[in-house]
Amino acid sequence: MEHLQQSFTVQYNYNVFFTSALFAVDNTLFSDFLRQLNPAVTIKKILFIIDEGVAEAHTGLTSEIKQYFNQYSQTQLVQDIIVIPGGELVKNDTQYLDRVLEAINTHGIDRHSFVAAIGGGAVLDMVGYAATIAHRGIKHIRIPSTVLSQNDSGVGVKNGINYFNKKNFLGTFSPPVAVFNDELLLNSLSDRDWRSGIAEAIKVALIKDLEFFEWLEANATALANRDREAMNYQIWKCAKLHLEHIRSADPFENGSARPLDFGHWSAHKLEYLTNFEIRHGEAVAMGIALDTVYSNLSGRISAADAQRVIAVIQALGFELAHPLLQVNGANSPILQGLEEFREHLGGELTITLLTALGKGEEVHEIDADILKQAAELLQNQAAQHSTTTVL
Amino acid sequence: MEHLQQSFTVQYNYNVFFTSALFAVDNTLFSDFLRQLNPAVTIKKILFIIDEGVAEAHTGLTSEIKQYFNQYSQTQLVQDIIVIPGGELVKNDTQYLDRVLEAINTHGIDRHSFVAAIGGGAVLDMVGYAATIAHRGIKHIRIPSTVLSQNDSGVGVKNGINYFNKKNFLGTFSPPVAVFNDELLLNSLSDRDWRSGIAEAIKVALIKDLEFFEWLEANATALANRDREAMNYQIWKCAKLHLEHIRSADPFENGSARPLDFGHWSAHKLEYLTNFEIRHGEAVAMGIALDTVYSNLSGRISAADAQRVIAVIQALGFELAHPLLQVNGANSPILQGLEEFREHLGGELTITLLTALGKGEEVHEIDADILKQAAELLQNQAAQHSTTTVL
Ligand SMILES: NC(=O)c1ccc[n+]([C@@H]2O[C@H](COP(=O)([O-])OP(=O)(O)OC[C@H]3O[C@@H](n4cnc5c(N)ncnc54)[C@H](O)[C@@H]3O)[C@@H](O)[C@H]2O)c1
Ligand SMILES: NC(=O)c1ccc[n+]([C@@H]2O[C@H](COP(=O)([O-])OP(=O)(O)OC[C@H]3O[C@@H](n4cnc5c(N)ncnc54)[C@H](O)[C@@H]3O)[C@@H](O)[C@H]2O)c1
Ligand SMILES: [Zn+2]
Ligand SMILES: [Zn+2]
Repeated sequence: MEHLQQSFTVQYNYNVFFTSALFAVDNTLFSDFLRQLNPAVTIKKILFIIDEGVAEAHTGLTSEIKQYFNQYSQTQLVQDIIVIPGGELVKNDTQYLDRVLEAINTHGIDRHSFVAAIGGGAVLDMVGYAATIAHRGIKHIRIPSTVLSQNDSGVGVKNGINYFNKKNFLGTFSPPVAVFNDELLLNSLSDRDWRSGIAEAIKVALIKDLEFFEWLEANATALANRDREAMNYQIWKCAKLHLEHIRSADPFENGSARPLDFGHWSAHKLEYLTNFEIRHGEAVAMGIALDTVYSNLSGRISAADAQRVIAVIQALGFELAHPLLQVNGANSPILQGLEEFREHLGGELTITLLTALGKGEEVHEIDADILKQAAELLQNQAAQHSTTTVL
Repeated sequence: MEHLQQSFTVQYNYNVFFTSALFAVDNTLFSDFLRQLNPAVTIKKILFIIDEGVAEAHTGLTSEIKQYFNQYSQTQLVQDIIVIPGGELVKNDTQYLDRVLEAINTHGIDRHSFVAAIGGGAVLDMVGYAATIAHRGIKHIRIPSTVLSQNDSGVGVKNGINYFNKKNFLGTFSPPVAVFNDELLLNSLSDRDWRSGIAEAIKVALIKDLEFFEWLEANATALANRDREAMNYQIWKCAKLHLEHIRSADPFENGSARPLDFGHWSAHKLEYLTNFEIRHGEAVAMGIALDTVYSNLSGRISAADAQRVIAVIQALGFELAHPLLQVNGANSPILQGLEEFREHLGGELTITLLTALGKGEEVHEIDADILKQAAELLQNQAAQHSTTTVL
C-alpha cells in the first residue's frame, strides 16, 4: 500500500523582557504577561523555583513574590516556593529534578499553568527540562540571574541535565513562553561571574557583528568596572543576536552546523579537564583567543585583527591561555578533544573560524601544527601580560 | 530597554510505510530509508529495542535483523538487541527507560544515529520518550506491532511514560523519523488485541469521514474474522486520517481542543477504574457508544444513526457498556471522571459529540441526566444483545 507522508510546521513565539525589580508591586510587566496568555482558562497556577544563590543574596525575594501575587491574584501562586542549589550540582543529581516534578504533580500544575525559574543557567536548564517533560510540556518562564543566562543560555531553546556523568545528556529543545531579565539580580554576582558571561558577547560579535565588537572594544573597561548601563546594553544586544541566530538558522539543531559554538570546542574540553573549576565563560574566552589566533595563522585574518580580539579579552580581565590547552605531542588532551568532537558530529568535523572580525566560516579540518603554534603564542602573550601587570 | 520578540517555525516531516516482512533480506525498504538520511555523516549506528511479546511470538526476528544488517551494512547495527517487556509495565517502571538510556550511552548513539523500537504502543511510547530526551533528541524509528499502534498511536507525535502513578505524566511531542507498519507482525495478536485497535478507526471515521464509517459497516464482519485485506485497508485509512488531523490542527496540542479524543473521556476513567484490565480500544468502543447515544438524546443525531454506530461496535465483537459507566447519583465515578477532565482542561470542559455520522462538534457542558439515560440505554441494549447471542 502507498506510503503516507506527514509534514507540518510548528510555530514558536516568545518575548524577552528587560526590567528592573520585576516583583516590585508597581511593576505590572509580569502580571500583564500572565493575564494575556489563555484568557479563556479559568484556573491558572504558577509555581516558582529559585536558585539558592539568588535566594541567599536577595533575602526579600520570596516574600516580595508572595506580596506581588496578593496584589495580582488572577494567577494562583503556589505558596510553597521551592529553593534548590545553584550551579552544576542541580543538573548532576536527579533528586532536584524529582523535587520539581513532584511539586508539579502535588500542586496540580498542568499545561495551562506555569513553572517559573529564577536562577543561573544551571537552574534554568534543569527546571526547563522538568517543565518540558511534565505533561509533555508545561509553559515555563525563565528569570535568569547571571550575565551568561541573561545574554545567552536563558534566551535560547535548550533545556537539560547531566546524566551518566555527561553534560546535558538528557534534554529537550523547547523554548520558554517568556524570559524576564531583571538587572537588579546581577548586583549580587561576584566579579568573576559578572565578567564570565561577557565572553558570549565577544563570541557572537566576532562571528556576526563587527559594530558590536567595536562597541565591546570601546566599553571593555566600563564593563570590567561594573558599569550598569554598559552591562545592560551588552546583555540586550547579545541576547538579540542570539535570538536572531536561532530563528534564522536551525532552531532545534537538526543539521550539524553550530556557528554559535565558536570558541567552544576547546572550552568544553577545558571545563571538563579542570572539573568545571574554570567557569564556562572563562573557558570560552580562552577558546575564542585560540580559534582567533588559529584564524590568523591559517591566513584567514590579519595579525592586527587577532590582536584586537586578544586586547578585548584581556581588558575584560580574562585569562588568555591555560597549560591544558597546549599541544605537546599527539596525545595532548586538546587534540583528543578535537577527535571526540569529530566523533560527536558523526565523523565530519565542523568548526567555526573567522574570516574577518564579525564574520565566521565553517571549516572541516584543523591542522595540529598550526594549533600548537596558536596555543604557544597565546601562552607567551599571557606570560608577558602577567609580567606587565606585576611590574 | 525595548523587549525582544522571538518567532520561528520548525518543520517536521516523516513517512509511514506499509510492508510485509520488513527484515526479509530482499526487502530494501528499511535500508533504503536509512541510506538517504544524512548521507554526509560517515558513522551512523542503529540500536534496536524489541517488545518481549513480539520477540516471543516471532522467534526468528532478532537473527533476521542481524542478517539484514550483514547484507546492508552502511548503517552499523548495535549487536546487543534489547528485549523489554511489553504492555503498561514498561511505562510504569523506570528501570526500562534507564536500560534504553544506558544502551544509548554505552553504544555511543548520537544525534546522527537511530533508535528503532518494535512493539506495541507502550514500548513505542517509552522508547520514543527515551530517544527524544537523550542528547535532546535522537532520531527514532517506530515499528508498531499492534493494530492500535499501527493505525493510531505509532503514527502520531507523542511519547511518554507513566510517573507518580499517572498515565503519561512524563512525555514529549516529538515525531519519529519514520514509521514502518509490517502486516506480518499482527499475525500473533490475540483476537482481543486484533479487535481492540479498530475502535480508533470507528472514532476517527465518526468525527471525520462518513465514507470510511460506511466502509467499516460493510467490513465489520470481515475484520472480526481476521480478514487480512480488510485489516490492511482499515489500518492504512485510519493512519491517514490521524496524520491529516495532526497536520491540519494543532500538532503539539497548544490549544485545548482534542477532537481525536472523541469517546475517550469516559474510556480513560474506565481503564483506570478497572486497573487497565479493559483494553484501551475496548474502553474507547464503550466511550464512543456512550457519546454517540448522548449525541442522539441531546438532539444532535437521529436514533437511527446512533443505532448504526452501535451495530458496528457490536458486529466487531466489542462490549457496549460497563457497570462502572452507569450514573447512580452525584458520586458516580463517571461523573467524577467528567469533573477531573474539566480540571485537567483548566476549568472549561471541551468534549466532542456528533452532529452527523462523520462530523464532530465541540461542546462545553454535559447534562448528567442525559448521560444517565444514555448509559442505561446502552446497558439495556447490551443485555439484550447478550441474551440474543446466548439463545
Ligand atoms: N541552555 C543553554 O543553551 C545553555 C547555554 C550555555 C550554558 N548553559 C548552562 O548554563 C550553566 C551555567 O550557568 P551560569 O553561568 O549562569 O552559572 P550557574 O547557573 O552554574 O550558577 C553559578 C553560581 O552562581 C549562583 N548565582 C546565580 N545567580 C546569582 C546571583 N544573582 N547572585 C549570586 N549568586 C548567583 C548560583 O547559585 C551558582 O552557585 C551550565 O550548566 C551550562 O551548561 C546552558
Ligand atoms: N502515543 C500515543 O499517541 C498513544 C495513543 C494511544 C495509546 N497510546 C499508548 O499505547 C499503549 C497501548 O498500546 P497497545 O494497545 O499497542 O498495547 P501494548 O503496547 O500495551 O501491548 C499489549 C500486549 O501485546 C503484546 N504484543 C505487542 N505486539 C504483539 C504482537 N505482534 N504479537 C503478540 N503480542 C504482542 C505486548 O507484549 C503486550 O503484552 C498504552 O500505553 C497507551 O497509553 C499511545
Ligand atoms: Zn557558551
Ligand atoms: Zn485512543
